[in-house]
Amino acid sequence: MGVLIVGTIGLDTVETPFGKKNEILGGSAIHAGISSSFYADTAICGVVGVDFPKKHLDFLKSKKIDISGIQVVPGETFRWSGYYEYDMNQAHTRDTRLNVYTMFDPKLPEKLKSAQFVFLANLDPELQLKVLDQLEKPTLVAMDTMDFWINNKRDALREVIKRVDFVLMNDGEARHFMETPNIPIAAKKLLKLGAKAVIIKKGEHGALLFTDKLHFSAPSYPQDMLRDPTGAGDSFAGGFMGYLAKTNDMSEKNIRRAIIVGSVMASFNVEDFSLDRMKRLKHEEIFTRFDEFRCFSEFESLSEKEAKNV
Amino acid sequence: MGVLIVGTIGLDTVETPFGKKNEILGGSAIHAGISSSFYADTAICGVVGVDFPKKHLDFLKSKKIDISGIQVVPGETFRWSGYYEYDMNQAHTRDTRLNVYTMFDPKLPEKLKSAQFVFLANLDPELQLKVLDQLEKPTLVAMDTMDFWINNKRDALREVIKRVDFVLMNDGEARHFMETPNIPIAAKKLLKLGAKAVIIKKGEHGALLFTDKLHFSAPSYPQDMLRDPTGAGDSFAGGFMGYLAKTNDMSEKNIRRAIIVGSVMASFNVEDFSLDRMKRLKHEEIFTRFDEFRCFSEFESLSEKEAKNV
Repeated sequence: MGVLIVGTIGLDTVETPFGKKNEILGGSAIHAGISSSFYADTAICGVVGVDFPKKHLDFLKSKKIDISGIQVVPGETFRWSGYYEYDMNQAHTRDTRLNVYTMFDPKLPEKLKSAQFVFLANLDPELQLKVLDQLEKPTLVAMDTMDFWINNKRDALREVIKRVDFVLMNDGEARHFMETPNIPIAAKKLLKLGAKAVIIKKGEHGALLFTDKLHFSAPSYPQDMLRDPTGAGDSFAGGFMGYLAKTNDMSEKNIRRAIIVGSVMASFNVEDFSLDRMKRLKHEEIFTRFDEFRCFSEFESLSEKEAKNV
Repeated sequence: MGVLIVGTIGLDTVETPFGKKNEILGGSAIHAGISSSFYADTAICGVVGVDFPKKHLDFLKSKKIDISGIQVVPGETFRWSGYYEYDMNQAHTRDTRLNVYTMFDPKLPEKLKSAQFVFLANLDPELQLKVLDQLEKPTLVAMDTMDFWINNKRDALREVIKRVDFVLMNDGEARHFMETPNIPIAAKKLLKLGAKAVIIKKGEHGALLFTDKLHFSAPSYPQDMLRDPTGAGDSFAGGFMGYLAKTNDMSEKNIRRAIIVGSVMASFNVEDFSLDRMKRLKHEEIFTRFDEFRCFSEFESLSEKEAKNV
């Protein structure tokens, strides 16, 4: 088993300045799972209602995603409805219906318990803890969360952070949770809670990695084709985890590359609604864009001679 | 003549969560000028009233800054009073008194007309045009502006942009001026107005360079010692111009380095009020921090072999 992703699977109704789409495939586990599947064997764990369109499960299977961890139960699938205003920086929720997620009990099928790379996407931290309890000996576990859990399940969230390797949060959530407007200070406080590494996702401003020893700043893609930001953070996480699983190399160098791979995947995901861009995405495009990221961020040192009399 | 900087010279009253300082040395030309003086011969053009403390002029002279372009006229010096809230992302103005700047007529002393590198710091664009008219044959001219001129002198501002090489703006101003929330689109629109290159300053999120041909993303310094953001953008511009003047190399590679030098200078400037950190700043510190910026942003390519089956 390569990558196991536990999170939401849902039907989104999304409105952006580029249009409105009703009941399209979405959810944190879906965006992360599809992104990860470009790199490694991927399994998704979540729950859907009996109304969940079969075509979406077929799509996951066509991407060779293991769906044995997706429970189909009586009731309605998770639904989220929201819109983005002109600046598209923030999702505004119109309606969230947890539906079958109110009774979700993540029970991993036996073969998924041995997953080496596990991403606990945004979900009730108490459920994230239940998943952690079932894992045998993962190489690397990462987690994400959102404001709702920061406000309502702070203690469980702290417990999850203590037990994972990578904490992924967007900048607003990290500032909010750690009660400081300063991102580096928020990251240091998260490290003190017990995480080995913290990745702050900044959307249009890129991503930052903090550990006790190192700092890495990933540029953003100069995206002028942004159509729907939904799922960007999850496709980042999926690419990051998938690439680490594929390479099985946890060196600092490779973690930096994995963060760029995640950034590349997110930059594609936002170019169309739902998973539409990912459905069309080709391996060559990924490589080309990775290379662009390198071009965007390269610069040479001040020479020694110059340094002396800067 | 190396670098000529035209802008405001003033006395700032600044309040941040780290304290309040009354009537400290400030102004766009001062922050840019001091920063530039670390690299190249620098002259400042502006105006002060007879109340301007002699010690500040002595300080500029001690930094070997040419102050022959600073007019001392009857009246009161420019004053700005403002505060930063907890998040320190935005300056809130309490009071702006243009004072002697209401009658400022930038007349360059003969020897400053031949300046090779000219930075038109934030100032009435009609005055910026007057300076442009006096320049003999500059190698490179850069300009900055602010919301007030975008709202009130749009045509003059467009004229300045047409005539300079580098437009420097912060992200909010660029979005506002070009009427789009998307930074890359705003930058492209600014290029269409006639600028050869656009640098978008994003404060805690770094800086971006856009030209017709290339894009460069400079990381931000993970600054957990931020005490007073006033003048950050101007010290960025000063370092950028000073380094280009010192090296006299307008290659793409060197422009990238100059943007990092600017970022380094800004990262120091915000560590204390007014010019206090710059007064203590040593050349070795600059070099060390430049090197840190490289460490923060380096990553290796996906190998060819990997690329084939990403």
